[in-house]
Amino acid sequence: MSLLTQIETPALVLDCDRLDANIQRMRNKLAAFNVVLRPHVKTNKSLEVTERLFAGGRGPITVSTLREADFFFEAGFTDILYGVGIAPNKFAHAAALISQGAQLKLVLDNLDTARLLAEFAQTTGHVFEVLLEIDCDGHRSGLSPQSPLLVEIAQLLSANGVRLSGLMTHAGKSYDSQSIAQIQACARQERAAVIDASQLLTRAGFNLPIISVGSTPTALFTEDLSGVTEVRAGVFAFFDLVMAGLGVCQVQDIAVSVLTTVIGHQAEKGWIITDAGWMALSRDRGTAKQAVDQGYGVVCDAAGQPLGDLIVSATNQEHGIISSRSGVLDPLSLLPLGTLLRILPNHACATSAQHAGYHVFSEGRSLGYWPRIAGW
Amino acid sequence: MSLLTQIETPALVLDCDRLDANIQRMRNKLAAFNVVLRPHVKTNKSLEVTERLFAGGRGPITVSTLREADFFFEAGFTDILYGVGIAPNKFAHAAALISQGAQLKLVLDNLDTARLLAEFAQTTGHVFEVLLEIDCDGHRSGLSPQSPLLVEIAQLLSANGVRLSGLMTHAGKSYDSQSIAQIQACARQERAAVIDASQLLTRAGFNLPIISVGSTPTALFTEDLSGVTEVRAGVFAFFDLVMAGLGVCQVQDIAVSVLTTVIGHQAEKGWIITDAGWMALSRDRGTAKQAVDQGYGVVCDAAGQPLGDLIVSATNQEHGIISSRSGVLDPLSLLPLGTLLRILPNHACATSAQHAGYHVFSEGRSLGYWPRIAGW
Repeated sequence: MSLLTQIETPALVLDCDRLDANIQRMRNKLAAFNVVLRPHVKTNKSLEVTERLFAGGRGPITVSTLREADFFFEAGFTDILYGVGIAPNKFAHAAALISQGAQLKLVLDNLDTARLLAEFAQTTGHVFEVLLEIDCDGHRSGLSPQSPLLVEIAQLLSANGVRLSGLMTHAGKSYDSQSIAQIQACARQERAAVIDASQLLTRAGFNLPIISVGSTPTALFTEDLSGVTEVRAGVFAFFDLVMAGLGVCQVQDIAVSVLTTVIGHQAEKGWIITDAGWMALSRDRGTAKQAVDQGYGVVCDAAGQPLGDLIVSATNQEHGIISSRSGVLDPLSLLPLGTLLRILPNHACATSAQHAGYHVFSEGRSLGYWPRIAGW
Repeated sequence: MSLLTQIETPALVLDCDRLDANIQRMRNKLAAFNVVLRPHVKTNKSLEVTERLFAGGRGPITVSTLREADFFFEAGFTDILYGVGIAPNKFAHAAALISQGAQLKLVLDNLDTARLLAEFAQTTGHVFEVLLEIDCDGHRSGLSPQSPLLVEIAQLLSANGVRLSGLMTHAGKSYDSQSIAQIQACARQERAAVIDASQLLTRAGFNLPIISVGSTPTALFTEDLSGVTEVRAGVFAFFDLVMAGLGVCQVQDIAVSVLTTVIGHQAEKGWIITDAGWMALSRDRGTAKQAVDQGYGVVCDAAGQPLGDLIVSATNQEHGIISSRSGVLDPLSLLPLGTLLRILPNHACATSAQHAGYHVFSEGRSLGYWPRIAGW
């Protein structure tokens, strides 16, 4: 990859061939089910990557911020699920998007927010569309699938002109699985939670066109999506070391890496110093709790091939320290001053967020620089 | 702080009164010594904050990226130390800054980089200015103060028209101190390392106008800076929980915080869900190794007062989970849906880097929005 020598380091590199293969894998997996893929664009935050997810089209997306909603709506994406419980100080922003024609779906999981949204809707005349969040695994947010509040909230919203479009849940616990069988159990639990809740609401007379589940591990290993209408997933497009540690992908599937340069040697300690610190890699240590702790990332040569058991073992803001995980390998002779390396990330979402864009390559040719958005 | 209710969360808030007091404290401390303060702008990456550091003037600064050098040079700062070992792919960028009139100082700690820089200087005719990096505590980069390579590198640079302006070191280990006495020992070690190395080079005939040390803990507690010409420090302007844990500041000195909103309750677990996840707080867990682990940050009310022992105990990308550190406090009754909170960060550099700018307040009035730069 001699093209990489033109880039001032550190920089984020995207292997477009791996990206395309990862997207195809998810498409192939979901083709067996009667569901829509609503990819989570929080991982890529890029128009070019998101277009790639739809082969140039403009399908339904999930966003993690209203900034993403603004950006992708301006780019022609209209069906947008904002997947974080709505805060009252964002009602006006959401209303502005809806006024411009976005089919924006909001999420909430409690009566107080429902009351405030209903009040705002009544006062301003905006028609909001809402999915209720269901807690399938005690991981984070959401109402229990059996909660009597479900019907109470649904009635309150409907009585105030807020459209209840369906239910959503996220199997966050799937990230802690120890095996594919455990991931499949998470997938069953994820589906069961929204199906149970939807039955409760259907019995109460509500019609729910959207039943939404999703996480990269459960989406790739689910065996049953009956009753589910759509699947959300984000990290599958890039993959990362956490996903590889789970067995969801191989290390060689990881599409993003951080390009860095060797700037020093500390020979007595067996350390290589690079110019990619936590600012370039992020502080994410997602593999710390897995069977193999990959530090701040796996060290590859400029072509993307892992170099033995070298990892980034420590970081400061703009310094990385590379060492051998086992202590067996001597990286010093291997990596002279000025050597270009690529670091595979623990967590693609976190590492990518440290950069303003991607240097994109396909089959050794540059596809240019794809910018990312950031902020809220 | 009713002004805060105008802001869509999450957002970065800067208390300018605390900022000014922190700057004054450092100025007062260093007034007792015959040294220049060369603040590290990597913490703030903001023109307005950096101007505040110099009471509107344009003094010498330290930067962590050439992007910072570009930005601050364009804003009128000319004396700039780039504090990370220079990589060959940055020579041309550095040369461009020097050609435009920047008094840019580069750092290196090895013969190979010196050779490559000398070769570049000879080929292109650019006059570079270099500080050699000294390792005072085995923390990261730098040459040993007694290394015979010091003279060898100095001779190589001089023979090729590269100006050797001095030495620099950073007491990174001071962040692991258990007491003020230990910080003071780090400060002595930091000073001794550059003084020893300078004596070695002086004996070999080199004149070193710059002897540069620095870290926020050592700068604030040093007792002896004789022979030192300048002090670098960055985080002192904002402070953070890591510094408070070290005893370097009080929690109420911390000038930056992340404004967030309560978006959910998980009553059975005693959890409060907010809209500030790791994207807004960073993944930095700097207090994890300290006596008091503050999770992802200390929870304050909208006025900035800590709320009992509430911390952000877990984060996802756009979700924070707040709980009581001791488990004693019930945050649910305390924090109804929609409540505005402020989270004090583990690490001011890392948390601030997740935001495009600061919402700045002084004595309850808004001073506006101060943008930050990012990237390389």
